[in-house]
Amino acid sequence: MKIYLDCYQCFLKQALSAARRAGGTQEQQLSVLKKTMSILNDLPKDAIPPEIARLVHQTVRHEISCSDPYREAKLASTKQAMVLLPELRKLIKNSSHPMDTAIRLAIAGNIMDLGVMEDFGNLHTTIDRVLNQPFAIDHTAELKELLESSDHVLYLADNTGETVFDRAFIEKIKIPVIYAVKGSPVLNDATEQDAIEAGLDTVATILSNGSDVPGTLLELCSPEFVSAFNNAPVIIAKGQGNYESLSKSGSKVFCLLQVKCPVIGEDIKAATGSIICKRC
Amino acid sequence: MKIYLDCYQCFLKQALSAARRAGGTQEQQLSVLKKTMSILNDLPKDAIPPEIARLVHQTVRHEISCSDPYREAKLASTKQAMVLLPELRKLIKNSSHPMDTAIRLAIAGNIMDLGVMEDFGNLHTTIDRVLNQPFAIDHTAELKELLESSDHVLYLADNTGETVFDRAFIEKIKIPVIYAVKGSPVLNDATEQDAIEAGLDTVATILSNGSDVPGTLLELCSPEFVSAFNNAPVIIAKGQGNYESLSKSGSKVFCLLQVKCPVIGEDIKAATGSIICKRC
Repeated sequence: MKIYLDCYQCFLKQALSAARRAGGTQEQQLSVLKKTMSILNDLPKDAIPPEIARLVHQTVRHEISCSDPYREAKLASTKQAMVLLPELRKLIKNSSHPMDTAIRLAIAGNIMDLGVMEDFGNLHTTIDRVLNQPFAIDHTAELKELLESSDHVLYLADNTGETVFDRAFIEKIKIPVIYAVKGSPVLNDATEQDAIEAGLDTVATILSNGSDVPGTLLELCSPEFVSAFNNAPVIIAKGQGNYESLSKSGSKVFCLLQVKCPVIGEDIKAATGSIICKRC
Repeated sequence: MKIYLDCYQCFLKQALSAARRAGGTQEQQLSVLKKTMSILNDLPKDAIPPEIARLVHQTVRHEISCSDPYREAKLASTKQAMVLLPELRKLIKNSSHPMDTAIRLAIAGNIMDLGVMEDFGNLHTTIDRVLNQPFAIDHTAELKELLESSDHVLYLADNTGETVFDRAFIEKIKIPVIYAVKGSPVLNDATEQDAIEAGLDTVATILSNGSDVPGTLLELCSPEFVSAFNNAPVIIAKGQGNYESLSKSGSKVFCLLQVKCPVIGEDIKAATGSIICKRC
């Protein structure tokens, strides 16, 4: 998905938020804003949001000498979601369609996105909503079929905290799961450390994608990850960043997300607030 | 009030919105964004938001060769508010404190601000809220006293449509009113034409301030307006732009506004959504 003109303002907002989380002084925050505007001014015509976001967050980390501005927020997110894990399991167990409920909960967890909002409000409200609203795009039947017939699945993580919702879903998947995380910190995306803190190592094989893109750009991933991507019979790609980078990558990829900004909504043809399970 | 770092993203948003309202092509919209970033990159340290907004909206008008991008929206706003005028008069007439109600309604009208939001929702909801919520800063007693004891008042208009709410208030003011409007179009701020379309010429003497700043910067206003400003015994200054430019201009100025952004809120020490009648 190409950048929209509406994304420009959003990158400035995200840069300032990240700079503040990194503890930057006023001067450092201003410097981050100016460098972000310089990045936006020099964009190639076919730039896609995750590669721009990567440059913006690299700028923040470099200007403020902070390797992981979202570390504290990520720890809090994991803690907040871990409290809910028994409840998520219970919802799945007591459901008349456990796999559907597990998929919906994994999508509910996608609300824990600090790239779009400063906080994600009450998680119970989101869970109730996502368990009951209709899908705007619903390819869950095909996904469930492939999760029955394939020998394994590659699961591309998105945000920290959302990982716990992924964990509840993965506990219901009967085939082996490779859980791919970011190679190094960017935004509140889950790294290996973040995933382990949410116990994903107890239900899946964790694999770093070797990159700091908030999304999945294969040309910037490690050879090991690219090989896993190519060999996977089915891929679950969580969140907006993965949709932005993988929406044209073939029918084995299923994007699971909540639409949290109007630009994604326009691209995917669904209103903000929609839930999506889209086969690419 | 100096610019805050949070304003940068907002100027990009406002520039894009104005460029679209002006009917700009994608290329023109991109050009407007790039020129806005160039303005933001070169800001002097003591820049204040209305003077930056002036440059941004000049850029939009120049790049897209459109003298008044908000013309259509302004006509719609006046029409929408004019429908309410009998109701506003009735609310004031039936009130046990007519002048207080008139002041509150003038503040309610300040919601009609297209610099902050793309639309301002249901006006009845806003009227109900503003008639009933407590002031965050309340210098209305002093204002009412001066409106009794002075020989005239200079009333600095803000948005088109809000003009109609001002009209209902002005009908209750017993001293002569000079209603100052922008010298030429900027944002949805009222010009002389816009004020006449709302019937302000029937209740006040309309005076152009000779400037295209969305606020009041005396150094950019006409000598005639500056003289009216200096000679006025009391001044009512509507809206955020006037607060940003006049908040330190002396005790004869009363800022009447709704706080519609967190940055103004931080500066004035009141939450977003607050209503304010502040003596400067």
